[in-house]
Amino acid sequence: MVRENEVREAEVTIEAPAAIDAGLVFIGRIGTPWISRLVSPRLRRIDGPVYRIEVFEPWIPALQSLEAYSRVEVLYWLHLSRRDLVLQSPSNDGDARGTFSLRSPARPNPIGTAIALLQRIDGGTVYVRGLDCIDQTPLLDLKPDRTLFTPIAPPQAEDFRPAMKHRSCPSNPTPDRPLVAITMVLPMIWRSTSASFAQPAPNTSATP
Amino acid sequence: MVRENEVREAEVTIEAPAAIDAGLVFIGRIGTPWISRLVSPRLRRIDGPVYRIEVFEPWIPALQSLEAYSRVEVLYWLHLSRRDLVLQSPSNDGDARGTFSLRSPARPNPIGTAIALLQRIDGGTVYVRGLDCIDQTPLLDLKPDRTLFTPIAPPQAEDFRPAMKHRSCPSNPTPDRPLVAITMVLPMIWRSTSASFAQPAPNTSATP
Repeated sequence: MVRENEVREAEVTIEAPAAIDAGLVFIGRIGTPWISRLVSPRLRRIDGPVYRIEVFEPWIPALQSLEAYSRVEVLYWLHLSRRDLVLQSPSNDGDARGTFSLRSPARPNPIGTAIALLQRIDGGTVYVRGLDCIDQTPLLDLKPDRTLFTPIAPPQAEDFRPAMKHRSCPSNPTPDRPLVAITMVLPMIWRSTSASFAQPAPNTSATP
Repeated sequence: MVRENEVREAEVTIEAPAAIDAGLVFIGRIGTPWISRLVSPRLRRIDGPVYRIEVFEPWIPALQSLEAYSRVEVLYWLHLSRRDLVLQSPSNDGDARGTFSLRSPARPNPIGTAIALLQRIDGGTVYVRGLDCIDQTPLLDLKPDRTLFTPIAPPQAEDFRPAMKHRSCPSNPTPDRPLVAITMVLPMIWRSTSASFAQPAPNTSATP
């Protein structure tokens, strides 16, 4: 059952630190048919309604060229969510799981992410399918689906270096400084030898 | 070429509104071998190094059950990025495109998202492959890859309703209120008739 904001049996809240490490600006609003989490679908459906994402000024020019992508990653602010739950009981049955193992809206930073199907863009309005958020959800960002996007800038040396297992840092958080020093020099060599290298790197995305 | 923070020919900045609509809390840090954007890869590589995500207290208990997923969505704060660019020139060649058509770190809300391959979890430390951010990047969130996650809570009526084109809202942002009123009642009926409905809904995710 979907939560309004109650704390359930077996759930654990903490005293959440003040959320002052960085600030967000709402760049738009998402219009949907759902006025409450109690009735919205829990997962987006590509055969669901068309959602109307309204982008505010001064960000409307930033939509330029987005229509080239059939899928768009949408980031939004889950403005009604509590932020202090570390264990949650989605079924409200006495069993709890960690917040990071769920896609529940209740999380320390309640940011929703979805891959939506782009229908069209009309001025500052973006029409998509495949969201599940409630009406008037604040918009945080739009970007091309990572599996469709190929960088436009020329490649960097690290895009192509073979995998090197010794660069792993499983037990030591400190970066391998001598190696980093070498890689600081590599791009300079790269630039001097690859002026005609105009093709962008292939998308090496992990998701299919 | 990767940007530090210069504004290039053909790029457009705006006077960005104050970012005070919501606040973020940094819940951890990501340790990587890259100390500068000038040397980091532009796209994550699944054959790249293992990254060490350190989760801070009081959020460590929220990692419980995450190890059940082979891929984890990682949200992080691109703390070195400028936030006032609406048109950007990735190639620095006089051509510009809208910020929302790029996956550049420079955006109104510089939130990075990636799908990482989970290696293991040890206390408050999560080891993954497939990121591309620089060392000490602040962590915002971890959640199961959307294509692997099935809701645990019992289904809601809207999860299964057939697609209805008249619920689209292409030209009118106001939700269809009578329909919403009906759907407020449906979950009550649902609950009273589906007490034995223990199977979660299938994942109707748009991405494969």
